[in-house]
Amino acid sequence: MRFMEEKIRAEGKVLPGQILKVGSFLNQQIDTAFLKKVAEAMAQAFRDSGVTKILTIESSGIAIATAVGLELGVPVVFAKKHKSSNVDGAVYTAEVYSYTHNTSYTILVSSDYLKSTDTVLLVDDFLANGKALNGLTELVEQAGARLAGAAIAIEKGFQGGGDALRAKGVRVESMAVIDAMTDDAIVFRS
Amino acid sequence: MRFMEEKIRAEGKVLPGQILKVGSFLNQQIDTAFLKKVAEAMAQAFRDSGVTKILTIESSGIAIATAVGLELGVPVVFAKKHKSSNVDGAVYTAEVYSYTHNTSYTILVSSDYLKSTDTVLLVDDFLANGKALNGLTELVEQAGARLAGAAIAIEKGFQGGGDALRAKGVRVESMAVIDAMTDDAIVFRS
Repeated sequence: MRFMEEKIRAEGKVLPGQILKVGSFLNQQIDTAFLKKVAEAMAQAFRDSGVTKILTIESSGIAIATAVGLELGVPVVFAKKHKSSNVDGAVYTAEVYSYTHNTSYTILVSSDYLKSTDTVLLVDDFLANGKALNGLTELVEQAGARLAGAAIAIEKGFQGGGDALRAKGVRVESMAVIDAMTDDAIVFRS
Repeated sequence: MRFMEEKIRAEGKVLPGQILKVGSFLNQQIDTAFLKKVAEAMAQAFRDSGVTKILTIESSGIAIATAVGLELGVPVVFAKKHKSSNVDGAVYTAEVYSYTHNTSYTILVSSDYLKSTDTVLLVDDFLANGKALNGLTELVEQAGARLAGAAIAIEKGFQGGGDALRAKGVRVESMAVIDAMTDDAIVFRS
């Protein structure tokens, strides 16, 4: 989507370690007019997929997932990153390895909120190596639900996670795919 | 607001320790049709307050804050709970004591996203002892911004945080205020 590429060029900042900082509009601070455009485009892409539920992971995916949920008129569920006192009963869990923090963490969602009758759209702000998204697909599998696909704001294509999921047959729709990134330049997939 | 009280009575669950579980519609799983009503009511309450920015705290406040930001057409900023690799530059910080976890944590927001020219509306899902909301007001003070007030989904009135803030002159608008809660009954403030 051209509008996402333009926004990244206008406001994104490349930090050491191939980190793309989009705190001014996508996380930390959310530009709600821009968010609305993102959500409309994501909803449009999956409007005919029979989505009954959106699944994301706390915390930076929540804003986008909420906006898409409002567009599609379906509930949003967010997987938590570790056991909280507010989760009781049966849960689905998956292990996610974080390259950023060089450690694994557990994501979990209550079995009350993911059912075998659900068709689930995964939504997240970033897709890089795909570990988080793989964890979310595991939760969907454990619930016996159908996976409609994944809607991603920014995919770091050069880290391969998106293409690996596509090779497994998962429909991944990213608003922008970055194929290369240096301090001076960002190359988007055409 | 009657609609919030009805939803709590219909779907809320009281857990030991006076915890009100609203995971089916407000956190964990978000009922987006209901969220839209909440956001409209919060936006209505502060529509004439000149709000330029919404401030919340990760992660359970983000969905509501995003929905209110979409209604009011202003950016949403979320305070993070500890230093992340994606925050660079100057930050405002405050200490928040958590009774739930019996420990203090730091909340922080980049000074890029809160300015002295801002009029800030605080949004959160719960208000109990008010520690989190007090921390957010500190961030607003550090930025030299104006505080429009706070919009809260559910206030546990019996824990006193809301009334303490009101006594200090902060406008607090809660969609439901619970004055007493037992395993069998929830008493709302009329």
